[in-house]
Order: sequence, then C-alpha cells, then structure tokens
Amino acid sequence: MTTVGIIGGTGYTGGELARILSVHPDVEIASMTSRSNAGKKVSDVHPYLKGYVDIDFTDSIGDVDLAFVATPRGVAMEEIPKLMDRGIKCIDLSGDYRFHDIPTYELWYGKRHSDPKNLKNAVYGLPELFRDKIKGADLVANPGCYATATILACAPLLKAGIADPLIDVDAKSGTSGAGMTPSERTHHAHCGESVIPYSVGTHRHTPEIEMALKMFSGVEPEVLFVPNLVPIVRGILSTCYIRLTADLREDEVQAIYQKQYEGEPFVHYVDEPSIRDVVASNHAQVGVRTIGRRAVAFGTIDNLVKGASGQAVQCMNLMLGLKETAGLNAPGLGV
Amino acid sequence: MTTVGIIGGTGYTGGELARILSVHPDVEIASMTSRSNAGKKVSDVHPYLKGYVDIDFTDSIGDVDLAFVATPRGVAMEEIPKLMDRGIKCIDLSGDYRFHDIPTYELWYGKRHSDPKNLKNAVYGLPELFRDKIKGADLVANPGCYATATILACAPLLKAGIADPLIDVDAKSGTSGAGMTPSERTHHAHCGESVIPYSVGTHRHTPEIEMALKMFSGVEPEVLFVPNLVPIVRGILSTCYIRLTADLREDEVQAIYQKQYEGEPFVHYVDEPSIRDVVASNHAQVGVRTIGRRAVAFGTIDNLVKGASGQAVQCMNLMLGLKETAGLNAPGLGV
Amino acid sequence: MTTVGIIGGTGYTGGELARILSVHPDVEIASMTSRSNAGKKVSDVHPYLKGYVDIDFTDSIGDVDLAFVATPRGVAMEEIPKLMDRGIKCIDLSGDYRFHDIPTYELWYGKRHSDPKNLKNAVYGLPELFRDKIKGADLVANPGCYATATILACAPLLKAGIADPLIDVDAKSGTSGAGMTPSERTHHAHCGESVIPYSVGTHRHTPEIEMALKMFSGVEPEVLFVPNLVPIVRGILSTCYIRLTADLREDEVQAIYQKQYEGEPFVHYVDEPSIRDVVASNHAQVGVRTIGRRAVAFGTIDNLVKGASGQAVQCMNLMLGLKETAGLNAPGLGV
Amino acid sequence: MTTVGIIGGTGYTGGELARILSVHPDVEIASMTSRSNAGKKVSDVHPYLKGYVDIDFTDSIGDVDLAFVATPRGVAMEEIPKLMDRGIKCIDLSGDYRFHDIPTYELWYGKRHSDPKNLKNAVYGLPELFRDKIKGADLVANPGCYATATILACAPLLKAGIADPLIDVDAKSGTSGAGMTPSERTHHAHCGESVIPYSVGTHRHTPEIEMALKMFSGVEPEVLFVPNLVPIVRGILSTCYIRLTADLREDEVQAIYQKQYEGEPFVHYVDEPSIRDVVASNHAQVGVRTIGRRAVAFGTIDNLVKGASGQAVQCMNLMLGLKETAGLNAPGLGV
Repeated sequence: MTTVGIIGGTGYTGGELARILSVHPDVEIASMTSRSNAGKKVSDVHPYLKGYVDIDFTDSIGDVDLAFVATPRGVAMEEIPKLMDRGIKCIDLSGDYRFHDIPTYELWYGKRHSDPKNLKNAVYGLPELFRDKIKGADLVANPGCYATATILACAPLLKAGIADPLIDVDAKSGTSGAGMTPSERTHHAHCGESVIPYSVGTHRHTPEIEMALKMFSGVEPEVLFVPNLVPIVRGILSTCYIRLTADLREDEVQAIYQKQYEGEPFVHYVDEPSIRDVVASNHAQVGVRTIGRRAVAFGTIDNLVKGASGQAVQCMNLMLGLKETAGLNAPGLGV
Repeated sequence: MTTVGIIGGTGYTGGELARILSVHPDVEIASMTSRSNAGKKVSDVHPYLKGYVDIDFTDSIGDVDLAFVATPRGVAMEEIPKLMDRGIKCIDLSGDYRFHDIPTYELWYGKRHSDPKNLKNAVYGLPELFRDKIKGADLVANPGCYATATILACAPLLKAGIADPLIDVDAKSGTSGAGMTPSERTHHAHCGESVIPYSVGTHRHTPEIEMALKMFSGVEPEVLFVPNLVPIVRGILSTCYIRLTADLREDEVQAIYQKQYEGEPFVHYVDEPSIRDVVASNHAQVGVRTIGRRAVAFGTIDNLVKGASGQAVQCMNLMLGLKETAGLNAPGLGV
Repeated sequence: MTTVGIIGGTGYTGGELARILSVHPDVEIASMTSRSNAGKKVSDVHPYLKGYVDIDFTDSIGDVDLAFVATPRGVAMEEIPKLMDRGIKCIDLSGDYRFHDIPTYELWYGKRHSDPKNLKNAVYGLPELFRDKIKGADLVANPGCYATATILACAPLLKAGIADPLIDVDAKSGTSGAGMTPSERTHHAHCGESVIPYSVGTHRHTPEIEMALKMFSGVEPEVLFVPNLVPIVRGILSTCYIRLTADLREDEVQAIYQKQYEGEPFVHYVDEPSIRDVVASNHAQVGVRTIGRRAVAFGTIDNLVKGASGQAVQCMNLMLGLKETAGLNAPGLGV
Repeated sequence: MTTVGIIGGTGYTGGELARILSVHPDVEIASMTSRSNAGKKVSDVHPYLKGYVDIDFTDSIGDVDLAFVATPRGVAMEEIPKLMDRGIKCIDLSGDYRFHDIPTYELWYGKRHSDPKNLKNAVYGLPELFRDKIKGADLVANPGCYATATILACAPLLKAGIADPLIDVDAKSGTSGAGMTPSERTHHAHCGESVIPYSVGTHRHTPEIEMALKMFSGVEPEVLFVPNLVPIVRGILSTCYIRLTADLREDEVQAIYQKQYEGEPFVHYVDEPSIRDVVASNHAQVGVRTIGRRAVAFGTIDNLVKGASGQAVQCMNLMLGLKETAGLNAPGLGV
C-alpha cells in the first residue's frame, strides 16, 4: 500500500488530512510529525482520531511515498527541498509554492524565497482547472481556501472572455480558516456575534487568485479582495462582483458555468449555492446571477476540505494515479 | 407630557420601540395596539418590559400626539390616512411611504398605493441627511435597516462627486432583521452555521437606497444590492464597492467621511467599523478604504435600533422639537 | 445487493439516512417516499445528495428488504403493520415502538397505540446495550437522540449497582434535533444567543430512558430530565447528576466505564467528552467525574447520526448480518 | 458631582463599568487606569465609548470618592489597602474579598491573602440578599457572575427551610464571562459549535455560592457546581437541581419565590426565565418548577451587567446613598 506522511500534524489542516486519509482505501498514514507533540499519541492530541490513527507523533517523516506539508508559512520551503531530494512527492499546504514568480511571493509574503528551484516546477493544485499538470507533478502547491472558492466562481466568466478584469470579491469565512492559534479576532466574545472584515485589499490570496485565473483563462483580472470573518466554524462563501463585456441573458451565463463544470465530481453548478450542502465534504458549489451587464458569482466550499486537506487528497490521488475521488466520495452534511 | 402610541406592538420593531420609549424622559407610551394580543398585558407578551410598560394591548390607538406605525407592509397605508386626518403625526416603519414616486412603489412592492396624498408629503427619515425636512414633517417614512447602513456608507462619496454611479453592495444582516415570524430561512438548523445570500438584485431596499442617495447628492446611483443572512441576532454590516472618478489618496477620501459626519451625535467615522460597537444603541459607524481608484465603504448599525426603532425615536425627537438624542443617549455594547 | 427504502424522506432524519446509505458498501437505496415531494428528484429537495442519490421521491416504498420509517409520530404505527405483513424488516425512527408497555406509550404520547401486536415484538435499537436482540429483530425501535446520549452516560453506574435511582439529567441539544419545521423556539433571532430550557420534567424521552436503563441494569431509575436548546446545529451533551451508593475513587468509577465500553466501535470513554469530536459521525463519547459520593456522567453524540440515522444504519447492519460498522466507519470532524 | 475611578479599565468588566457609568446621572468617571494602555484615549481602546468617555487611561486613579477595582485576582488585594487608607470607598470585582474566611480563600485561590484586615470588613455585594450591609459598607466584594445567577435561584428554597443541602448546579455561560484574553477554550473554531463543561466540581464560585447562601439562610448547602461554556456572547443560565424536604405543590413553591423577590427592582420571578429578556440590562429572572419532591430552579442574568459591572454600580448606588436604580433603569433587549 502507498504510504504517506504529514509534516505538521498538530494544526487543523494536519488533523483534517489525518481524518480523511485514515479511511482512504488506497493509502496508509505512515507518519505524522509535530514539533510540540513528538512522542505523544496522535489520538491523544486529536481525540476524534481514536480508533482511526494509531501512531505517535514523530520528529521526522521517515520513508514515505508522498508527504503533505502542513507547516506554517516559511517552514515548508525549508522542508520541501530535503524531501524532494529524497524522491518524495510533496503537496504543500502552506502557501510557499503558490507563485512561480519570486518577486510576487516576496512582495506579498514579505520574505525571501529559499527554494527557487522547486518553486519553478511546482504545480498549482486546483484539479478542476489544472488536472493534467497535477497528474504529472512531483510538487503541488495546494491552493488557499479563499482562493479556491473565488477562482472556481470567477473562472468560467473569464475563460468565456466576457468579464471585465476589475473584479470585487467579498468573501465570508468560518473561523476554522484562521487556524488553531487563539487570537483576538477569533476570540468568541469578539467575533461570535459580529462580521469582521479584515486585510481589505491586502490579503495574500489576492495575487494567488489573479495568477491562477490568468493561467487558466489568459486574462489577468485585477481583484479587490475583502475577506470577512463570520461566526460559523466551517465554510466559505465567496461573492464575486463581475461586470460583463457582452449582452447575455442570465440563463446563457448560467449555461457557461454548467458547461464548465459538467462531469466534475466535486464542483457543481446550482442556482443557490449553500455552505451547508458542501460542509464536511470535498464538494464545491458555484452559482451565478445577472442584473443587466452585472454578474454576481458565488462559490461555496468547506474551507478545511475542498479549501485545504480534501483538495490536497484529491491532488494526491491524481499524482499517484489513483481514482480522483478515492477517500473523498461522500456528500456534504446538508444540515 | 407628550403621548405616543404604537400601532403593531407585537413584532420586533414594536417591542423595540416600547423598550426605548419606556425610558424616554419626555414622552409617554399611551397605547400599543395588536390584532392578535389585544386585551393582554404588554409585559406578558414582551416579558423584558415588565416594570417598564404597564399597559394592555388595545385594538385602537386612542388619543395621542404621535403614532408609530409598525405594521406589516400594506397595512400602514390603510391606517395612516385616518391618523393624519385626526391631526396625529405619524412615523411609518413599514416601507409604505418611502417612495414619493408611485410607480416605483408599485413596481417594487407589487401592489397599488392607496394613499397617494400623504405619500407625496412624507419625508424620508434619515436625520443625518434630511434633518431639516424631518423637523417640519407630519409624516415620516422611517428608512429600512439595510438602506440606513448602505446610504450612510455611500453618501459622502456621491456628495463629493467622485463616485462612479455603478455601486455593488454586499450587505450582511443579523436574523432579527427578518422579523418575528419563523421561516425556513431563519430556522436555526438552516441558518445557524451558514451565510445565506437572497433576493440578489431584487431586494426592496435597492430603489430606496438609490432614491435617498439621489435626493441627497444629486447623483443617481445604480445599485446592485446583495443581502446576506448571517448567524448573528442583531447587527448589519453593509460593504459598498465604489469606483472613484478621481485620484485621491486614502486619507483624503477618509477626510471626506470625517467632514460629512463631524458633529453628528449618532454617526461616526472610524477606521474599522464594528457591529459590536454599535449593537443595542442608536449609533452607526462608517469607514472607508481605497485601493487605487477603488473604494470599499462600510456601514454598521444595529438593525433594530438605528435601522428601525431607534431611528424612529430620533425622528420623533426632531418632529416634536425635543433634544435629538433624548432617550437614545447610550453607547453600544462593545462586547 | 440488499435494497432499502426510506419512508418519510423529506425531513432531517430522512435526508441523513440517505446521506449515509448513499455511500454504504452493501446496500442500495431503492426508494424514498414523501407526501409533499412525490415526483420530485430527491437531489432537488436535498441538493447535497446530487451525484449520490439519483432517484425521485415516490408515494410508496415498493419492494425492498428493509424499510426505515422516518415519519412523524403516529404515522409510523399506521405504516409499519403493512410493511411487516409484507415481510419487510422495519426500523422505526419515530418513537411509536419504543415502549413495550402500552399504558406508558399512551400516557406520554397522548394517543392510543394502533399496533399492539408489533409493539410487543419491537426491539429497542441501542446496539451497545441490546446487540443480540437487535440481530434477531424484524422490527427495531430506534432510540431518541436525548435518550441515546443519556442512557450511554448512565448505564455503567446503574449496571454496577452503585447508583441512587434518583437521577437528574441536564441535556443540551443542537437545533437540528427539533426537525425541519420552523417554530418560534428554533427561530434564530429567538434562540441564536440564548439557552432555552423546555419541557422540564415532561419530555417524552424521560420514560424511554427509564425503560432502557431498567432493561439493561435491572434497576429502575427515576429520571428528572431537563432538555435545553443551545445555539449549535448538531450535537448533544447530556450531563447526568448521579449519587453513588458506595465509596469509590474517581479512577475506580472511570474504570467501570472503560470496561463497559471496551471494544465498542462507536462508544468511547474519554476524560473530556467533546461534541466536536463526534459531530458528523456515529461515534459517542462518555466520561465521568466524581466529587465525593456524587458523580457527574457525560454523554455526547451527533443527534442526527448516533442520535438518529447513523444508529438506525448500525441497527440495520446487525439485522442484515452485515459488518456492524459498514458505512459508518469514519471519525468525527474534530473541528 | 460624585467622582469615581476604575482601576483596570482595559478588560471587559472595566469597559462595561465605563459604558454604564458614562450615562449615570449622579456620578462622573474621573479616571480609568490601565497598565498596558496608560496614555491612550479610553475611546481609542474601547471605540464604543466615543462621545461618552473623553479621558485618557492613566497609571493611577487620583482623587475620587469611590473606586471600582477590576484587576486580575491577586492584584486587587495589593491596591485596595492603599485606597482604603486614603478614605476611598472600594468595590472589588476581582474575587479577592469574597470570603471572610481566609483558609477558604487560600484553599480555592491557591495563594496567601495579603490584606486580612480589610477582608474582615468586606461586605458581599448582592443587594437582594444583603442590602442593608452594603449601604453601610466601605468595601464591597462584588459577587461572581455564576455565583449571582445561582444564589438568586437557590436562596428562596434554602431560606424557606425546605431544601436538601445537596444541590447540583448545571450552569451555562456566554463566552464574555471568560474575559478578554484569547484562549484555546474561547477560540471560536473550538467553542462556536459546542457546549464545553469545565472545572467540574472545582470552580472557584462553588465556595462563594455556599458561603453566601449560608449567610442568607442559615443553612449551609453542599454545592456540586458544573459550569459550561456555550456559544453565546452574553448571558448565564444557572439550572439548580434541589430536592425538597417537604411536600409542596408547584404553585406553593413558586409563591415562595414571588414573595422573596416582590418589590425588587432587578430580580423577577417568571415562569420561563429567558437570557434574552435580561441581556444588556441589570435585571435577573428566576423561575422554579417541581416534579414531586424535586425542584429545578433557574436563574438568568447578563454576566457582564448583573453578573459584574451593573451589580457593582447597584452596590455603588447603595453605598453612596443614591437611588438604587440610578443609571441602571433600562429593560433587557428581549431580542
């Protein structure tokens, strides 16, 4: 059986990878590393994994076929060259390998990139847009959660050549997207009865969205991205305000979306996308409405699944030649 | 002492009016009407008013100086002509008198207007924009909750003549804005862990926002309004995407807002508007950020106070020549 | 392949059954009935099932090996005799068959029981307590959600013969437990920032808890049951206040629990039971603390899975001779 | 005008004191101290106080008539002796002066008490039970939030001499009760969809509840106290399981409560206490139900108002000979 390891298994995306992989039919979790918890049982740190993951956290990943790197930003680019040199395929969930363009990375992430060689070859891991490249990749940069929801919602209009490049995105995320470290913003008494916009126009997913959409459509949008923290645990709704450059009826625009995602196992056009319909699953829903020459495109995902660990497993399946839906074939909760 | 009555005292805005007016220093609640609860003690239906409102619900409002009409849409325009004929000043919270323009009313509300005479003379009750008119009014149309938050956020840029008229508004509202009648959308299991967009481009506050902004600024915007239900009880955040027609630095744009609302007792420019800072109060916060020639303007209010009953009391104070802040002089909760 | 049908597929438990069964390796959903939605695609009513359940709602269940009856109370006892007569095994999720004792049913449910014959043979479907009986059953009465969490938490102490029979239970439930019909209590503006106790001492799960605990332990407790609605969507925490009749150290009491549930695939002793660790899964966690001769026992489940549809599938697996964990082998979400 | 100061003005209770006192008709906030924010405008740290509190945070409190001490535990007993020596009346919100009995303090708070002299004279500040003592006090120990809700719910039964001393309390608190410092437990992704019991049987409010109830009733109860964090921001529901030592009908027991709190401005007997009816106000609601000889008593408050800062202002009013309700005379929000 194929073996995989998780570097950085303490956080939410690390735990979520283990949750999904522990019941994957074709791979086995051989190791999970953690700086703070090495030596402890994984299921003592993540009690929901009791009976599913029966290993201890270790310092190093050992001998595996593929590694998921779920470390903080900046750490991944230290770890990945070593893994690549050992011939281990890698999926980076941290953001370190999302830009082919070093200046863009350094501008938005505020630090030097220490692994330009692998950066050049990393494939952006959004299967619905770049499936073939992912299949042949040794290193996949797993997309950001906001980026996934937004790119899926905007891609069809840009690809169809009918979108003005100035796009405003108002995205709403559950609090698990902020990770497991407590902060003032995610303190319940602060955020539990509020909607909190932050990083207006300066969020790091902005250039990622622009880059991926350009790669896919040939058109480079200028995205004004406004993320909002909403008091739900899991789920993202990305609302994209796009002006159309052609006169189309609403149903014609909707048909573009339907055609784009026809046959996709995890991305679906629906008239009314719903967070609850995708939550706890790797599914995404997209929808679009038009008012004259103005379109509103919606994308919903579970930020920890299609927005992180589920999408990483989908990429893994492609990279390893497994069935793309293996281990991910389950509906959202609905309620 | 001045006496006031509340027509439609069972619902959320009726109860909220009673909550505020019960401790108002200059007026007395003489009557509250209710079709369904006539004969019952008000404080049995609204137990939080025990010790504050010691009257029973009645069928008719009796002899009062001013009436608040908090009925469903369509009922108000039956009641108000009768009240006006008796010389009772009226504040309508229902939406029936917000448009001077009958065709706009009939288009968006889907019914004939039965009181064109009073409609013509009704004043739109947003004090920060139309204070002088409200002072002289006998009939005030109290603004909608979404409309209040959005108009306050957009008005300064339109007035300054630097806004493109195509404006996209992404508004988030707490569930109390939907009123007290249970529905699928406000069913907790449905909305409690979700963000639900609805009435995309078709919400009735759209023409209200356009009309009020035009009256105030002379510029008629074309608003694409997208409301979202978020799982909080009270509060609205309205996020307005506005393109600028001139090159201004962010601080110059912010100065426009500061100047617009300077000296206002209830509307404040802050860099980071917060729902919790205004909740349970009549205060509003507005803020604005710019990225190049694109602005994002924010408005926050408590939908039941500045977005409904508090603003109605503010209008009442102006109509009756009382201190504008009487009965409303309290900070938001903060936490 | 074994075929199953769901009678009453519109509601939350019906949808949840379909969600689980649609990816069950050994059974196939042959039919789902609905009075209100017959003729519609199941995945139009439950969009999260798109790609998983590709049938229409029908009026009748047709020819199946086993039927899940997820109708309102009172309807099940009309349907089940007909199904039993056709030789179809049944699992009733409605509550109609939980009492062998007709007077208890009629006292607490307030209506005559129309199917005493099958009532007599129905088996109470809590596998951890009555596994062998379920294996041989043709009709299983699936336990209530509160009952499941409470019985699992209390059973070990009663079985051990060290519990005073007067037990106070303070249970907290997410709002999905109230079903899909909107009501004042589940209206978000009413319950979203509150904790609402209801049916104090009169909830119908009270006699069910007493009956099951007596069947299992031989001791009949007198349970004072206080349910509370809490503003979460899924999950129950049942807190049981039990006085001990013997002097035991805390670790000795905890050992009783560990031993009771040792080897169980779905019920686990942990020191700090957590709703999030079991949510979206068929797992339950129980814990116990003691202060002198007073014990506090905790039980947590997802009310729609182990508290309803998941447990029903677990019973189905036993009745059909399948692996008990088939289709249910997944961890809780954790986050 | 009487001047007051707030020592420790950065936290939630400090901000809440300022929110209430800023519109109090008879006192003026002369100073607010803060270690971390000295020199900053109070309204920059607490933006909701803009227009209401126009002073800067300072290092020391200066010359005031009365001081509120809202520091962390252990700091108060350093500050208060100095204030008392200067003839400043003090209200301590920290817990340092709640026990007359030094060993109890040292056992539950785990440190030596450095101010036994003032401890001896401190009065427990629950006006409904100890009004006369508070009137004459120079130092008041403001009750804990859980303690307030629980004591008000239990006191009538103990006073009536019909309660068994073994009482189980299951209390549910909003997250603002945990203060402003982020922690794992109050991290939204952790607690936002959960109910989290903690400190089972070991919470510091346990001996406080026992002491206050004994002082008031002469009967010393043995309380098993189980606090639960629930995902609401403000509000406590304390559910108290009490066995009766006499046969009384439910309405007789309820009459005991009605009589106990008759005429109280802030504590009310109602059949169904509701957090929303008291939230944002200084009101408390209590209720009681009986099932045979078992009673369930409920108490609800806003933890930051009647559970902290509002109750402190109520005590201040009594200490200064002001009207007890001054500055607190407002209904709860209801919605």
